[in-house]
Amino acid sequence: MGSGMVRSLRKAGLPVTVWNRTAAKADALRASGASVAQTPEEAVAEADIVITMVFDTAAVEQVMARALPAMRPDAVWMQSATVGLAGVRELSAKVDRSIAYVDTPVLGSKDAAEGGTLIVVSAGNAAGKARLQPVFDAIGDRVIDCGTQPGEAQRLKMVVQSWAMSVTSATGQAVALASNLGIDPNGFLGAIKGGSQDCGYAHIKGEAIMKGQFDPAFTVEGAVKDTALVAQAMTESKTDPALMQALNAGYREVAASGRNKDDMAAVFFSFKD
Amino acid sequence: MGSGMVRSLRKAGLPVTVWNRTAAKADALRASGASVAQTPEEAVAEADIVITMVFDTAAVEQVMARALPAMRPDAVWMQSATVGLAGVRELSAKVDRSIAYVDTPVLGSKDAAEGGTLIVVSAGNAAGKARLQPVFDAIGDRVIDCGTQPGEAQRLKMVVQSWAMSVTSATGQAVALASNLGIDPNGFLGAIKGGSQDCGYAHIKGEAIMKGQFDPAFTVEGAVKDTALVAQAMTESKTDPALMQALNAGYREVAASGRNKDDMAAVFFSFKD
Repeated sequence: MGSGMVRSLRKAGLPVTVWNRTAAKADALRASGASVAQTPEEAVAEADIVITMVFDTAAVEQVMARALPAMRPDAVWMQSATVGLAGVRELSAKVDRSIAYVDTPVLGSKDAAEGGTLIVVSAGNAAGKARLQPVFDAIGDRVIDCGTQPGEAQRLKMVVQSWAMSVTSATGQAVALASNLGIDPNGFLGAIKGGSQDCGYAHIKGEAIMKGQFDPAFTVEGAVKDTALVAQAMTESKTDPALMQALNAGYREVAASGRNKDDMAAVFFSFKD
Repeated sequence: MGSGMVRSLRKAGLPVTVWNRTAAKADALRASGASVAQTPEEAVAEADIVITMVFDTAAVEQVMARALPAMRPDAVWMQSATVGLAGVRELSAKVDRSIAYVDTPVLGSKDAAEGGTLIVVSAGNAAGKARLQPVFDAIGDRVIDCGTQPGEAQRLKMVVQSWAMSVTSATGQAVALASNLGIDPNGFLGAIKGGSQDCGYAHIKGEAIMKGQFDPAFTVEGAVKDTALVAQAMTESKTDPALMQALNAGYREVAASGRNKDDMAAVFFSFKD
């Protein structure tokens, strides 16, 4: 996601300095015209906007433990990793008042990040969000403004992820059941096509499963993390988490079988095997 | 569903005789020009096609224990209730060889039944299916032919129901989570709208939940039954049924709270409360 976002920012003519724990990933972005920093401190030193797009709360904390003290006091921090409700409380509490923390998860695939067609979900103080507008324009098709309180954007992201993880599992389940019943899963996709039950994900993930192509648009390990974050948000808000915990168990089973880095469509194997 | 099918058959000019355990339901169909029989025996005596559209295997057995011996030996039985894999084995075994058993569940809502736009899923011997073509034309937009073995159509129906029950629960879950997190659920529907995660059911069922309108297109008791049938099909075919059993638990919880006859969108309350 981060690489796609950088290329979209560069296509829009914005200067970008990148840092990544894996140096090769950062180096690959030189072709886009991005500068590559050797340390988090160096990456943020001159920046008036700092974007974090890493795996989870722990990874954000790790990099920002070094970057935050090096940031300009008037900088804006656009925090785009999916960190859930507890994550946003923890991270925003670390920020000096002079730095604006803008809670900004995104919706969409790696392709959308490359194409500048993400949906940007944003919450934070108005001045901070206004300064991020050129970034939003570069990476996104539209912005959903969730207000001024960091956390409001992660809340909407949790709801959308509850849906995305559910329909991906439902697709894996349907294709596995069809396959185990000796039916061509294309019969299922054909049956729902064009009707009120139709869903692009069923076709995208269903066809990936049938072809055995699990190049990740969103990884199993990401699904393990996000189903856990959604289950936490459900528990915290007194919403019954039983179904989400069942989804989480399926993604964990597939991760444990060594498919951590496969696309989450591999959840199919938790039903099939 | 049965009433809508009768009205579609009558619109196509086909003569229909109806019988229902609840006499008022049958009487209401007189206006369509259908004849009303007082007994199952009377309903089928002259028929060359007999259609069953009742709640479950037990209800089909109950009515056919009386109707089967009264049927013409050259009649075709179009069995449209969703009865699952065990149900179709049990029912088709009761049939005398001279009567063709055509396994024919349908996909679609009550509105589709009224409008003649169901998707007809059919399996049985070719001569039997050919004789049903005028019925298929009257009630359906298209036919998915699953071959000559009764049971093949119920298999596809199980797969489609696994999906329908899953996306309905996922919608209830997302709306409940949004609501409990203090977010307008329309924000969720807006976020997925037009993208690859979009699904008509999310909007139809989501809006029904937000309006508190639970007039049944498909009842909670139907969802309890069908999630159980799908879970049985999963177990029988060695497909992990854990997620389907979790869905079934949610629908059962809502049924137990007195919402048996509400639309299955009421599964929302299993997450919300």
